[in-house]
Amino acid sequence: MDQFIFTAAVHRLIDAALEEDIGSGDITTNFLIPPHAMSEASIVAKEDLVVAGLAVARAVFQRLDPDVQFVTNVADGQDIENGSTVVKLIGRLSALLTGERTALNFMQRLSGIATNVRGYMRLIENHPVRLVDTRKTTPGWRVLEKYAVRMGGAANHRMGLYDAVLIKDNHIAGCGGIGPAVARIRSRVSHLTKIEVEAATLAEVDDAIAAGADVIMLDNMDLEMIRQAVRKIDKKALVEVSGGVTRKDLQALAASGVDLISVGALTHSARAVDLSMRIK
Amino acid sequence: MDQFIFTAAVHRLIDAALEEDIGSGDITTNFLIPPHAMSEASIVAKEDLVVAGLAVARAVFQRLDPDVQFVTNVADGQDIENGSTVVKLIGRLSALLTGERTALNFMQRLSGIATNVRGYMRLIENHPVRLVDTRKTTPGWRVLEKYAVRMGGAANHRMGLYDAVLIKDNHIAGCGGIGPAVARIRSRVSHLTKIEVEAATLAEVDDAIAAGADVIMLDNMDLEMIRQAVRKIDKKALVEVSGGVTRKDLQALAASGVDLISVGALTHSARAVDLSMRIK
Amino acid sequence: MDQFIFTAAVHRLIDAALEEDIGSGDITTNFLIPPHAMSEASIVAKEDLVVAGLAVARAVFQRLDPDVQFVTNVADGQDIENGSTVVKLIGRLSALLTGERTALNFMQRLSGIATNVRGYMRLIENHPVRLVDTRKTTPGWRVLEKYAVRMGGAANHRMGLYDAVLIKDNHIAGCGGIGPAVARIRSRVSHLTKIEVEAATLAEVDDAIAAGADVIMLDNMDLEMIRQAVRKIDKKALVEVSGGVTRKDLQALAASGVDLISVGALTHSARAVDLSMRIK
Amino acid sequence: MDQFIFTAAVHRLIDAALEEDIGSGDITTNFLIPPHAMSEASIVAKEDLVVAGLAVARAVFQRLDPDVQFVTNVADGQDIENGSTVVKLIGRLSALLTGERTALNFMQRLSGIATNVRGYMRLIENHPVRLVDTRKTTPGWRVLEKYAVRMGGAANHRMGLYDAVLIKDNHIAGCGGIGPAVARIRSRVSHLTKIEVEAATLAEVDDAIAAGADVIMLDNMDLEMIRQAVRKIDKKALVEVSGGVTRKDLQALAASGVDLISVGALTHSARAVDLSMRIK
Amino acid sequence: MDQFIFTAAVHRLIDAALEEDIGSGDITTNFLIPPHAMSEASIVAKEDLVVAGLAVARAVFQRLDPDVQFVTNVADGQDIENGSTVVKLIGRLSALLTGERTALNFMQRLSGIATNVRGYMRLIENHPVRLVDTRKTTPGWRVLEKYAVRMGGAANHRMGLYDAVLIKDNHIAGCGGIGPAVARIRSRVSHLTKIEVEAATLAEVDDAIAAGADVIMLDNMDLEMIRQAVRKIDKKALVEVSGGVTRKDLQALAASGVDLISVGALTHSARAVDLSMRIK
Amino acid sequence: MDQFIFTAAVHRLIDAALEEDIGSGDITTNFLIPPHAMSEASIVAKEDLVVAGLAVARAVFQRLDPDVQFVTNVADGQDIENGSTVVKLIGRLSALLTGERTALNFMQRLSGIATNVRGYMRLIENHPVRLVDTRKTTPGWRVLEKYAVRMGGAANHRMGLYDAVLIKDNHIAGCGGIGPAVARIRSRVSHLTKIEVEAATLAEVDDAIAAGADVIMLDNMDLEMIRQAVRKIDKKALVEVSGGVTRKDLQALAASGVDLISVGALTHSARAVDLSMRIK
Repeated sequence: MDQFIFTAAVHRLIDAALEEDIGSGDITTNFLIPPHAMSEASIVAKEDLVVAGLAVARAVFQRLDPDVQFVTNVADGQDIENGSTVVKLIGRLSALLTGERTALNFMQRLSGIATNVRGYMRLIENHPVRLVDTRKTTPGWRVLEKYAVRMGGAANHRMGLYDAVLIKDNHIAGCGGIGPAVARIRSRVSHLTKIEVEAATLAEVDDAIAAGADVIMLDNMDLEMIRQAVRKIDKKALVEVSGGVTRKDLQALAASGVDLISVGALTHSARAVDLSMRIK
Repeated sequence: MDQFIFTAAVHRLIDAALEEDIGSGDITTNFLIPPHAMSEASIVAKEDLVVAGLAVARAVFQRLDPDVQFVTNVADGQDIENGSTVVKLIGRLSALLTGERTALNFMQRLSGIATNVRGYMRLIENHPVRLVDTRKTTPGWRVLEKYAVRMGGAANHRMGLYDAVLIKDNHIAGCGGIGPAVARIRSRVSHLTKIEVEAATLAEVDDAIAAGADVIMLDNMDLEMIRQAVRKIDKKALVEVSGGVTRKDLQALAASGVDLISVGALTHSARAVDLSMRIK
Repeated sequence: MDQFIFTAAVHRLIDAALEEDIGSGDITTNFLIPPHAMSEASIVAKEDLVVAGLAVARAVFQRLDPDVQFVTNVADGQDIENGSTVVKLIGRLSALLTGERTALNFMQRLSGIATNVRGYMRLIENHPVRLVDTRKTTPGWRVLEKYAVRMGGAANHRMGLYDAVLIKDNHIAGCGGIGPAVARIRSRVSHLTKIEVEAATLAEVDDAIAAGADVIMLDNMDLEMIRQAVRKIDKKALVEVSGGVTRKDLQALAASGVDLISVGALTHSARAVDLSMRIK
Repeated sequence: MDQFIFTAAVHRLIDAALEEDIGSGDITTNFLIPPHAMSEASIVAKEDLVVAGLAVARAVFQRLDPDVQFVTNVADGQDIENGSTVVKLIGRLSALLTGERTALNFMQRLSGIATNVRGYMRLIENHPVRLVDTRKTTPGWRVLEKYAVRMGGAANHRMGLYDAVLIKDNHIAGCGGIGPAVARIRSRVSHLTKIEVEAATLAEVDDAIAAGADVIMLDNMDLEMIRQAVRKIDKKALVEVSGGVTRKDLQALAASGVDLISVGALTHSARAVDLSMRIK
Repeated sequence: MDQFIFTAAVHRLIDAALEEDIGSGDITTNFLIPPHAMSEASIVAKEDLVVAGLAVARAVFQRLDPDVQFVTNVADGQDIENGSTVVKLIGRLSALLTGERTALNFMQRLSGIATNVRGYMRLIENHPVRLVDTRKTTPGWRVLEKYAVRMGGAANHRMGLYDAVLIKDNHIAGCGGIGPAVARIRSRVSHLTKIEVEAATLAEVDDAIAAGADVIMLDNMDLEMIRQAVRKIDKKALVEVSGGVTRKDLQALAASGVDLISVGALTHSARAVDLSMRIK
Repeated sequence: MDQFIFTAAVHRLIDAALEEDIGSGDITTNFLIPPHAMSEASIVAKEDLVVAGLAVARAVFQRLDPDVQFVTNVADGQDIENGSTVVKLIGRLSALLTGERTALNFMQRLSGIATNVRGYMRLIENHPVRLVDTRKTTPGWRVLEKYAVRMGGAANHRMGLYDAVLIKDNHIAGCGGIGPAVARIRSRVSHLTKIEVEAATLAEVDDAIAAGADVIMLDNMDLEMIRQAVRKIDKKALVEVSGGVTRKDLQALAASGVDLISVGALTHSARAVDLSMRIK
């Protein structure tokens, strides 16, 4: 379960990725490789990593040759050791050569995010807190990167501006405060839409509680203030901390009683892991 | 000069980025912000950085409201200090709020790459060597990330599989060696297409020289072997080193006499820099 | 507020609508109307109606001629009397003639839905219950029709399969019951995603309450059973009734204590209202 | 024959329909249903109806899973009784659940139109008159709805602005009357393009006859005037009546000697028929 | 009148044309031309020609820079002498340089067709016959090339497979002859769709007359047989000759009494005319 | 090798071509041909020609019916005699009829170019010179027409503005001459990008040599001046002649010592060759 979802946007991104690399043609392959030559290849981990993006890599090759066999006994989210074979491929040599870089670029980035997230998760594994991502994802990659975050073991914040309400300072100005803003929006959005309110002070926390916010985001508060806010909220809403959370803060925050810690660096600052493809 | 080029692929990526974030609508903004409310905002650097992506950020906002004013006295490629205002914006508050995250996501990643590249450049600034990127870019972002590399001060390798020939082991197998492979492809590609050959041994270097390769890529050779290769090639072709180049190898490589050092990490492992937007 | 949201999907639908009508060219207009001839026109209500879709009609004409003036002192959601002028247009005669049918087709359908909804709303206006739509919308028109429902005065259920969980019989089978199904999905979806559970029996209602469902949908229950379910649930979740609700059931249901009544006919069986365009 | 035509526009509409419903993912199905679980389902008529849209429903499911079996012994255009099984499906449960609503939305609307048309056809079945649709179709659905009209037993007017000339008042103004307008356009359009002229008075009917119009549309004339026009035209052109035709006028019009009766309500005011899908 | 129609397909072709030429960027212009440098240019005829495609050339430049001024006192369809200035341009030098080749490629081909057609027209100018094109157009260019044919002075056959019926041998086989085929299709297509029948023998001409065909196409008949067919048909249908018509046959055919002569070479074998652009 | 490359742009062009011809449906075929009727057909050469475009024709039919068999024992680039069967087809009759014209239109144009090029090649076959195309291709067809040129036996110039630098007068103006212009651009483009410089005088040839241009294009020089330029350049760069080259100049130019002759007429003024399809 939680299989990879091929949304229309993901299909378009794969098409765009192949188009930007192939352009008017892979001239090296086109002029040197006989069209019917077959080959085998394997994708190998060059470091310890958490794999993510197998279905995307498969789709890249199968767009170039629908008959490529892409065989793996590994699943997204699994820990892989340096040197392990992740995938075996059999198919037309021209498709393997032309698709190699694009497929690896997808897998290296998505596995890089999953690996990065797994590292954060190990720091908080004994705490009843949920680590969540943000909307600080690579433009064009939202669904893919949020999937990689889940594969790393963390959870997702909202997908975009459309599936939950998040009221910040700038939204409130013209409404006369948190209370009226929450009331207005609750009367308009679906009964299935949750409302989160950002609070920068304890007074705003009080307002958000009174307004009946489903989630209260504590924005850039220090640890002591966070603890006070948690006590005030007292389970009447979920409590999220956000803003400049570093690895070293993580355990103290996790122990503070908050429900959720959101970290932009899960996605925006993960480095690619090293995977390579060997053709026989 | 070297102004940002809005290719069709870049326009499609910007559209996709806004669509994945806005989806069926920015419900918070839509239900709370009066349609004609105007506001001002500024984008501020939260660390020292090299800026890149201004034109993309401008395009994001102007897709939401063509009348947004996006004023800057900074240019892509410029060093910016922590705390500096990079851009001032005036426009409809709803457009500023809805576009904020997408615009910043573009700028943070592109400026992150430019900043990363600038760091590498400082290490080799006194050497007559060219630092170049690779095709290890984020799928969908090729043109953007290669632009950010130039803004950081490095140069581009080929854009994709279409604008230069790069012959590797797997291309050669069926041709009877480097010589016949180069001869075959030279007879078929445009007279304006350069041919680069990857060599893993000094014997392959000899073959590549004899074949008249325009560029010879030394693949994963150690420093001593690189120096020997450089002497053999002796200006008859450009010499590129590639493969697992780390910051700490860089200066020794730069002094080895090679013409080009290609580094995948310029793009695939840059972290986003910190930029934030303040709305008044 | 609640201004019309031009999502990317709406832009594509408008383009598709013009393309399917114009095809290889409006031959009557093209061969008879001088390209620079200007004209005025008005869109007039031919029956009492609630208007919706003004921004879409404006966009249709302005795609054909960006300089068309589209002037109205009416707003979406407003009650309009038979004979009233809804819009005045000034622009190139060729654009007015070519765009007329497509613009009216959009407005007639959207205003038809808004008018239909308003009729339902009048029946329940004194009850503290929310009338909501369903996913039974015209394919391609989801965002537009859900907007027209709001303009008629009712509210929206979820936008699609992505912004809320709705667990039905067929989802539960392999999970071991409502409790485990809700637990499993709550551990995986965002903390901002609400979970609704469909219940066909009072036993299922008990299970849904125990599982902590945010909303419980009573599926095809009779009025007496609905009242029992409401008492059992007792504000621990929102209560929705659904399934074959007719206008004549509406008031009894509204008085039964449920929070939400969902009616597919709001969108799937609204007839178009009569609007016509007169060119001077 | 008259098999369903999958135009490019229809393919795009199906894609758009699935994309608007699935968005960033069917979260309920994705997190609860094992990816390889198979199931059977049937689509059942919940009222007497004329079926239309089978090929579209099949396409919806097969986009989600190309291996879905979609078995039917019914054809578009056939009368179906309440309670009949229309289609049996075998395939991946996740595809059946995710595609259900979109497939039904297409079939309910198209079958609704076919059923509506069949009702009109019964009123005039003994008259040598052709009932035809108009361009008052749902934007984006032109080809589909015109197909449903044929499945109901009526015929099509022109498909759009491109495949026939229809000269109305506003086209004539600058040409100096019906005669010059017809002459001008006949000299310019293909010899395969028919020319229809709208006439609101008997004088205009005379002009249209004299101009050699292929079809004369009598616009909003009363029955007596229609009979006079038919006598005047006397087979020199086809005669169409149009404008606010209600079911109750239909038989008198059909007996008046006109060749064609066009009715916008065939498409713009059909309600969806009731079909449901049962998963085993 | 008969202004150029920008269909959606034409817009897509212009986009595709610029994208295939610019790809990842016009590197010469981008690296050498200052972004704000302005310039003037003119497009000049290098031979006598009939101009066509002005609006397309304008659109090419204005996609690159909406502020480009494109000034002409010439209209499509006009005879231009060698050496004449056709257009003057003022705008950003980079836009002029990048757009030059694409704009000229469009104009040279469309003007080439118009010029070619004008040559044919001169041969038959005193005959009451209509010269028409075919569907032998450059794929992707149907609307554009049919427009150029009109600019050259000839007329259009059907636009595609959708706007008229043309029954050939292979359509008839399973129907039992021309009569039943025409009857079947007349009962199904719109009353606004004309029916043309291809006849290879005089017996088939008789059948087509009896079936009430609107147009009869005489396929590859010799001149004597054509004259006989014309006498048989005797104004009961339009008569078209088709198939391998050369310039030298044209006058005899034009005098044979047929209504229409269709010539594929109008579009498929026109050569480009010579136009060049001079930048100051 | 040199198999046909299906770039994304080619796929889009094929889709566009079918869409422009089929539009809202092939009404003749749709209403007369039983959906399951099968047939055989053959594509036959009606004149001597060089075939090109087989893969595109195959793709056209297989888009309409993936099961169409397209059997050929001929390869692109092969000389075919008048009367030869080029392809045999087996498949659904409706797909054969609907696809016929589009498939032939592609093959007739591409084979026309290959045949045209072959004629030029015969004129220079004993000379060590390369005949190359230009960017004067049909907009939308760049990759296809450049492929047809190779099939005819000539070679390609650059694909577009992106894969090589070509510096002309207008690029140089603001740079201070050829030397500075080449230096500036060499510092900015990839080491894999060649630089060609256009020279109209022998002084400019000297400048281009001194600047280290990879290729020097002699623009509209007479034969004597070309010979002088060749002697000056003396293998230090490749020498291309360009501009108004006619068939009759070709042999003298080929003997002049230049490396490359570029001829726009290879693509822009080829006529379609005659191919026809016979259905059994």
